[in-house]
Amino acid sequence: MNDRPDGFSLYLKSRKELVESALNRYLPAEGVYPVEIYNAMRYSLFAGGKRLRPILCIASAEAMGGLLDDALPAACALEMIHTYSLIHDDLPSMDNDDFRRGAPTSHKVFGEAVAVLAGDALLTEAFRLLTDPAAIRSVEPARVVRIVHEIATAAGAGGMVGGQVVDILSEGRPSDYETLHYIHSGKTGRMILASLRTGAILADGGEEELEAVSEYGRHIGLAFQISDDILNVEGDPSLLGKGTGSDAARRKVTFPALIGLEESRSMARQSIEAALEGIQRLDERADPLRRLARYILERKS
Amino acid sequence: MNDRPDGFSLYLKSRKELVESALNRYLPAEGVYPVEIYNAMRYSLFAGGKRLRPILCIASAEAMGGLLDDALPAACALEMIHTYSLIHDDLPSMDNDDFRRGAPTSHKVFGEAVAVLAGDALLTEAFRLLTDPAAIRSVEPARVVRIVHEIATAAGAGGMVGGQVVDILSEGRPSDYETLHYIHSGKTGRMILASLRTGAILADGGEEELEAVSEYGRHIGLAFQISDDILNVEGDPSLLGKGTGSDAARRKVTFPALIGLEESRSMARQSIEAALEGIQRLDERADPLRRLARYILERKS
Repeated sequence: MNDRPDGFSLYLKSRKELVESALNRYLPAEGVYPVEIYNAMRYSLFAGGKRLRPILCIASAEAMGGLLDDALPAACALEMIHTYSLIHDDLPSMDNDDFRRGAPTSHKVFGEAVAVLAGDALLTEAFRLLTDPAAIRSVEPARVVRIVHEIATAAGAGGMVGGQVVDILSEGRPSDYETLHYIHSGKTGRMILASLRTGAILADGGEEELEAVSEYGRHIGLAFQISDDILNVEGDPSLLGKGTGSDAARRKVTFPALIGLEESRSMARQSIEAALEGIQRLDERADPLRRLARYILERKS
Repeated sequence: MNDRPDGFSLYLKSRKELVESALNRYLPAEGVYPVEIYNAMRYSLFAGGKRLRPILCIASAEAMGGLLDDALPAACALEMIHTYSLIHDDLPSMDNDDFRRGAPTSHKVFGEAVAVLAGDALLTEAFRLLTDPAAIRSVEPARVVRIVHEIATAAGAGGMVGGQVVDILSEGRPSDYETLHYIHSGKTGRMILASLRTGAILADGGEEELEAVSEYGRHIGLAFQISDDILNVEGDPSLLGKGTGSDAARRKVTFPALIGLEESRSMARQSIEAALEGIQRLDERADPLRRLARYILERKS
């Protein structure tokens, strides 16, 4: 069923709804104090994201025959970490973006201090949720420890934060392919990979299956970032919720700038092929992962 | 031995050295990339802190007969979280402090973007370290999950970040005792409490012993914050590494401003008495905790 276009759309829609209703449960709007910080956290968390990381986490768990419920708290934690990184990336001292997904960024709405703190709180809340006894009931503690370590390693100084640091420090400077690759792998690839591995670990996948989704993850991570760069050049601003050409204006190093648009497209396609090859040995329960790979290549926003 | 003044000084010194050498091992200066972020993390981490939270964690573990080595990674993680909170609190959009402990603050040295990211990286690194298989070898996974949850809850929107939010939003506004208490409990008390509870949980303390150090922790947390406010009024700037009177200049709500200096002193003393009472049932292995309580009252910086 997941091979039919509408089957896959339904899959995406249902998983997205599950994630959003769980996020709403884990981070409620009512009965919280101080209300200002929860408002700011929720503002960015419910700003219309694709929920790609949580869906990858869930699809990976399902590919191993895991329970959706076991993967849901971690899936939501991954989205919180992604959201925190966007809030901090948008700050005046970083990318200084006023809009994201068509809406004013956190610091434009709540001021810079609350925006910094909303990011801090989302990052911290992610680790609270990952270890919340009420949420992770049936998961073995050893597996919980392992995913916290996976996620923190991917998000930290040697991963996502490291990528952002190199990105900030490289702006306006001539750059090379190695630097570009480090930035993208850090900012996007590592957390995509961690999302997939988290799902597989929670579903108690074997080491061989874990290696398969990791291989898949490394390739779709690269494809995702290349397609992001391409969209920044030629995407539809009304679908992206932000202007195109912003990377060039900032003299950011991108795949199209470094290797050209055609070569970038071809590289993204090859990465998707390699991703599919990586999970060849997995059965039809991995079909949503297969469709997700193509979705990443074809997305318009 | 720990009742003799020099015995206690030796205890403090040895535990501080252990923590600092472990921090240096966990976050090395060499062989890391990107070097800029590790430099910024280390700059603030080795800026001369008292290491109070890690020492409380270790002393709590030792009071239950736990192994120092089992508590050390968590003790260091607590110090990383404390350091991240200082870096972010000092930012121009928050307290806008140029100096801390006599040295320029992170954003003055590395710029605002790297300072935000150094804080983010330290917070993330804390959770990586808490779950690092190389560091936590002999600790049961269930206890690791529990301390991650304790620490994340204390550090997050309902704890440390929440306290900072209310502090920022209350500046220059008339405030009441309840708000003051929430701010201080959030910004300081919760992490002090979590440090003690973490040590006890790692040492496999029973629920009654855990409750004893928790009672102790709630009271020394309050005493610590009151004495901090008093030091800000009448401390020696050369020992504090920053000017006195800064709270008043910012119209920050403080204990001396709200209940007067004498009443504040008396309240701090009473809290220390209550803290000691809380751990009455613990044997002489809790003597360092007893001395730490008096140290908090008598400290000059």
